[in-house]
Amino acid sequence: MQAYQIQAGQKIAGLERVQRDSAPLAAHQVRVRMHAVSLNYRDLMIADGSYLSTGDKPVIPGSDGAGEVIETGAAVSRFRVGDRVVGSFFPDWISGAPTPLNSARALGAVTDGVLAEEVVLDEASWVAIPPHLDYLQAATLPCAGVTAWNALFVEGALRAGDSVLLLGTGGVSIWALQLAKAAGLRTIITSSSDAKLERARALGASATINYRNTPEWQDEVLRLNGGTGVDLVLEVGGQGTLARSIRSTRMGGTIAIIGGVSGFGGELDPFALIGGAKRLSGIFVGSREMLEDLNRFVEVAAIQPVVDKVFPFQQAREAYTYLEQAGHFGKVVIEVTK
Amino acid sequence: MQAYQIQAGQKIAGLERVQRDSAPLAAHQVRVRMHAVSLNYRDLMIADGSYLSTGDKPVIPGSDGAGEVIETGAAVSRFRVGDRVVGSFFPDWISGAPTPLNSARALGAVTDGVLAEEVVLDEASWVAIPPHLDYLQAATLPCAGVTAWNALFVEGALRAGDSVLLLGTGGVSIWALQLAKAAGLRTIITSSSDAKLERARALGASATINYRNTPEWQDEVLRLNGGTGVDLVLEVGGQGTLARSIRSTRMGGTIAIIGGVSGFGGELDPFALIGGAKRLSGIFVGSREMLEDLNRFVEVAAIQPVVDKVFPFQQAREAYTYLEQAGHFGKVVIEVTK
Amino acid sequence: MQAYQIQAGQKIAGLERVQRDSAPLAAHQVRVRMHAVSLNYRDLMIADGSYLSTGDKPVIPGSDGAGEVIETGAAVSRFRVGDRVVGSFFPDWISGAPTPLNSARALGAVTDGVLAEEVVLDEASWVAIPPHLDYLQAATLPCAGVTAWNALFVEGALRAGDSVLLLGTGGVSIWALQLAKAAGLRTIITSSSDAKLERARALGASATINYRNTPEWQDEVLRLNGGTGVDLVLEVGGQGTLARSIRSTRMGGTIAIIGGVSGFGGELDPFALIGGAKRLSGIFVGSREMLEDLNRFVEVAAIQPVVDKVFPFQQAREAYTYLEQAGHFGKVVIEVTK
Amino acid sequence: MQAYQIQAGQKIAGLERVQRDSAPLAAHQVRVRMHAVSLNYRDLMIADGSYLSTGDKPVIPGSDGAGEVIETGAAVSRFRVGDRVVGSFFPDWISGAPTPLNSARALGAVTDGVLAEEVVLDEASWVAIPPHLDYLQAATLPCAGVTAWNALFVEGALRAGDSVLLLGTGGVSIWALQLAKAAGLRTIITSSSDAKLERARALGASATINYRNTPEWQDEVLRLNGGTGVDLVLEVGGQGTLARSIRSTRMGGTIAIIGGVSGFGGELDPFALIGGAKRLSGIFVGSREMLEDLNRFVEVAAIQPVVDKVFPFQQAREAYTYLEQAGHFGKVVIEVTK
Repeated sequence: MQAYQIQAGQKIAGLERVQRDSAPLAAHQVRVRMHAVSLNYRDLMIADGSYLSTGDKPVIPGSDGAGEVIETGAAVSRFRVGDRVVGSFFPDWISGAPTPLNSARALGAVTDGVLAEEVVLDEASWVAIPPHLDYLQAATLPCAGVTAWNALFVEGALRAGDSVLLLGTGGVSIWALQLAKAAGLRTIITSSSDAKLERARALGASATINYRNTPEWQDEVLRLNGGTGVDLVLEVGGQGTLARSIRSTRMGGTIAIIGGVSGFGGELDPFALIGGAKRLSGIFVGSREMLEDLNRFVEVAAIQPVVDKVFPFQQAREAYTYLEQAGHFGKVVIEVTK
Repeated sequence: MQAYQIQAGQKIAGLERVQRDSAPLAAHQVRVRMHAVSLNYRDLMIADGSYLSTGDKPVIPGSDGAGEVIETGAAVSRFRVGDRVVGSFFPDWISGAPTPLNSARALGAVTDGVLAEEVVLDEASWVAIPPHLDYLQAATLPCAGVTAWNALFVEGALRAGDSVLLLGTGGVSIWALQLAKAAGLRTIITSSSDAKLERARALGASATINYRNTPEWQDEVLRLNGGTGVDLVLEVGGQGTLARSIRSTRMGGTIAIIGGVSGFGGELDPFALIGGAKRLSGIFVGSREMLEDLNRFVEVAAIQPVVDKVFPFQQAREAYTYLEQAGHFGKVVIEVTK
Repeated sequence: MQAYQIQAGQKIAGLERVQRDSAPLAAHQVRVRMHAVSLNYRDLMIADGSYLSTGDKPVIPGSDGAGEVIETGAAVSRFRVGDRVVGSFFPDWISGAPTPLNSARALGAVTDGVLAEEVVLDEASWVAIPPHLDYLQAATLPCAGVTAWNALFVEGALRAGDSVLLLGTGGVSIWALQLAKAAGLRTIITSSSDAKLERARALGASATINYRNTPEWQDEVLRLNGGTGVDLVLEVGGQGTLARSIRSTRMGGTIAIIGGVSGFGGELDPFALIGGAKRLSGIFVGSREMLEDLNRFVEVAAIQPVVDKVFPFQQAREAYTYLEQAGHFGKVVIEVTK
Repeated sequence: MQAYQIQAGQKIAGLERVQRDSAPLAAHQVRVRMHAVSLNYRDLMIADGSYLSTGDKPVIPGSDGAGEVIETGAAVSRFRVGDRVVGSFFPDWISGAPTPLNSARALGAVTDGVLAEEVVLDEASWVAIPPHLDYLQAATLPCAGVTAWNALFVEGALRAGDSVLLLGTGGVSIWALQLAKAAGLRTIITSSSDAKLERARALGASATINYRNTPEWQDEVLRLNGGTGVDLVLEVGGQGTLARSIRSTRMGGTIAIIGGVSGFGGELDPFALIGGAKRLSGIFVGSREMLEDLNRFVEVAAIQPVVDKVFPFQQAREAYTYLEQAGHFGKVVIEVTK
């Protein structure tokens, strides 16, 4: 079968298509024919060498893949051939809190990922796809969807009527916008593009801020939110955003920090957290249980994930480059098999 | 000013219109011209003598009133003349858990209520009305709205994607339906009337059951919910419903019990709770903080409470009788002042 | 190897010692030489036929066994030969909420239990024993210890300084007393024996009630607790205790119901729950994660579980009979291997 | 009556004793004869001008005072003359989350505090003292005690058996040590003094680290805690401690940051939070409800707060200077009235 492979630090040019053998299945393993793979900023960081190492040999990149079960090991009980499934970001983190053990393996970094025609994982690492989603949409669930779910409803513990600030219109922010809207939350979203803000309003954003026109956007957040900060900020990174995000948060509120576009420049002032009784919470994607909870909600609320652009399997490098240019709104997806 | 009064056990016929003097305000009191009062099953029980006593002299009935501030005491800071407000069910229960002290006074039962042209309460007992609601709609918030909010999101602690079973189409159930829909919950609702079920679907019910046609409705709940019970049942009472409600609940789920239409006949089997690790939770309306949280959500989600029928102030007895006939869908409201 | 077996309904006399073959291990299985087995009231109910069925053939009884690993399957990574372990009550319920699937197998009821010289379970079903406990003490952890932990700290969510009422001095109540004392909770315990109450005080009970001398013990609970009910009652059953337990609970508090000594006679009055905003929660032992959390606490607080009496393996019937006579204080244990 | 006053930035020398008039009471006010006032690092920061401003005129310093009710306003119902009480740090923050409104007034900073012979506050701002504490001990409750309670049990949400790291032996850390021990938590504490560590062990510390001998103390924390980080760190400040505290915390754990001894030097690396799914939580003392919960636990567990040294009212400057020298273990208290 065909697969891409890359070694950390080789840049996008290092991404190469290779032939790999299909290994026989162990008792609890499931073989899936990949149909779609969604890219994340993390994939660029791995290519760039600025994030996780892949060790001294190349790995198959990609953490988010959706496809069809084509073979099951002898002891498999969770799935049958023909089932439509998506892989969990951390194949070993089933539920509860993360631990060094259950988060050690992350697909497409320290272990082979999903940018391949076939992927084999333990049955415990696959989850059924909501019936109304196609493979392209389903591929966006594991990293971006689960990160947004975790930030909003697990760590953020938001309740209907709460308010959330979303920075930018990347994959996690747009997922969070759709989830928040369907869960009865008030949303404020920022962008440097009025066109993107227009699209965000169409998806249900309660208010929008063009941060190019409004550089002191934290003041505008307070103004738009009735004079008080929001309950939660999804902080996806960027020079100098962290201090503004903290100021945008109400007393006792939470800033969820998500590994991001350009790092978090500047120093943190602890007194901004103490005096406001605020909480800065690192979000590390999430468990399989969170993926299942997300899927249940996506089905109940009939959410249609926003796929910005689809590239064919042959154009994986083009897909990476397109993501790197950061002009997207929602998710960038590679279609592995039609 | 004109007001109604009643003594517990006098039946609806005992409801009489009287003239009352307006007393001067204490420093922290606020006088409100009532515009609308919403009725609850509890008001029938008080008239009937089957619930709370009103002591040995008549009281002004009604717990749920909305109106306009017409005078404020010298020390009042929360409101100004002209503000649109609604009274909190328990005037002394501000936040946190209920206590014998903060729940001792309940409007329209052991203390004078709101079925009057003017009502005086401490400023701490009034809450601002969401801007998009008129007085008739706002009058439905304190008892039915808060009870539904408490059951779903405080005691029930439901999260987007969870499922809830609603019994019948009375005030609490329809409030819960609207809140649940706007919060991304899956809802199943029962009625003996296909016409009412049709209206419930129009309000967003995910599935409906006519319990007259389907007497073993607990089996249908499981079938409709993918083979497993729902996360929460709002049990509003009725002969023999409790055992079915418990069976309709998933392992580890909750049955919220709400004082109800016709009592809860039959014996409870504790093993049905133990073997299912289920929870039977008494819901006692809620605090002012819950009313404020509800209002915030109602505004964010632009919810329009369902007012079934409006009666003029002169026809309070007719309003009671209409409620007693139990043909309503949503809330019955008395318009005190146009 | 030697084992006991029994068929539901055969009474204690049906308990017979038999020879069983040792089967080879599957890849993830672990074989343990049992040293100690602790009995629970549930074992009497199974013998009596009043609880779970064992199907149409006898099973090995007993849910709570502690021993030493003597053989590990080829793929086992959690344990090594020589490790001291205890089995989890529900071998398939690892963490999270119970489900029909993860609670389907309960040791010693629908599947073979632990009253045997050797027991084979999947590696995921065993947990390491706190170093300071011997096998006799460790055998009391899975059912009684986990039930008490779940009621106090998971479902009850008690916090330091909260108060709990314990009914009687059986295994679960004495476990709860020791856990509560070490966690800074205030405890009130009842018994018909002043001698047992004296022992309970020595273990740290804050107050005691002889329910024979004080039949209206719910009034005494309020008196002893500063005029208000306790935060949590561990209701282990008995004629007429449920209504008194509900009255002993503060507004907003919880009654944890645990399958018990003699059923729960009498009818439940739902208004006692509604008016008090109280919660009746079924406790169904607990998950492996709860057993691990319990063990961690037992080690941190150096808790020594109370073993009332130890019987040799040959006298299993005598142990059952002794438990049935209900004169114990703490746990009854069978020593399988010295 | 006699009182001290100070203006922000005047240093300890600016602290002067003055005569103040006793004003008449408003309806809900309570006058208390102060017996003891406990100092906090915050009081040094106010004197130093590095923290809150006192505006352009001097205020009475001190946030933590215990005394006896000597007069009550006409409408007071919570207290009677003779009651022993302690003031809540934020007189207007009763319960729930902090808000700009309920935390605006902090005693001894923006409003007059308690270092005076008489203090008048609204009845809602006083709380009864646990019976077994004298005034000197009770004076340590409001700031240090509540901060420790909030960090451990509200924000930290620790449960029996969890582990906590305490930095240094100041007032908050020693309060946290005593609370943690009594609640069944595992504690590790650091100091540069073996003598203080010896005292900490006597108070129940599970393990101790001399950070002078062990500069890489975060590695020692992991070693002492079985290879994994602790569930919670109480970070009270100091050059370069924050990064070590984050490394001392388990995945998914919390670092509670508390305004501190010497600021928090150095830059925060957000990836240390993301990759570990860790939480940095600002602790802003706490509400009156937290003070009441603390008091209840202190009484149940019979905790005796550690008073390091007592100064007479005349020697307030000496007390400040002694605290500034940072040689204390526990709390520094000024006895206002014998």
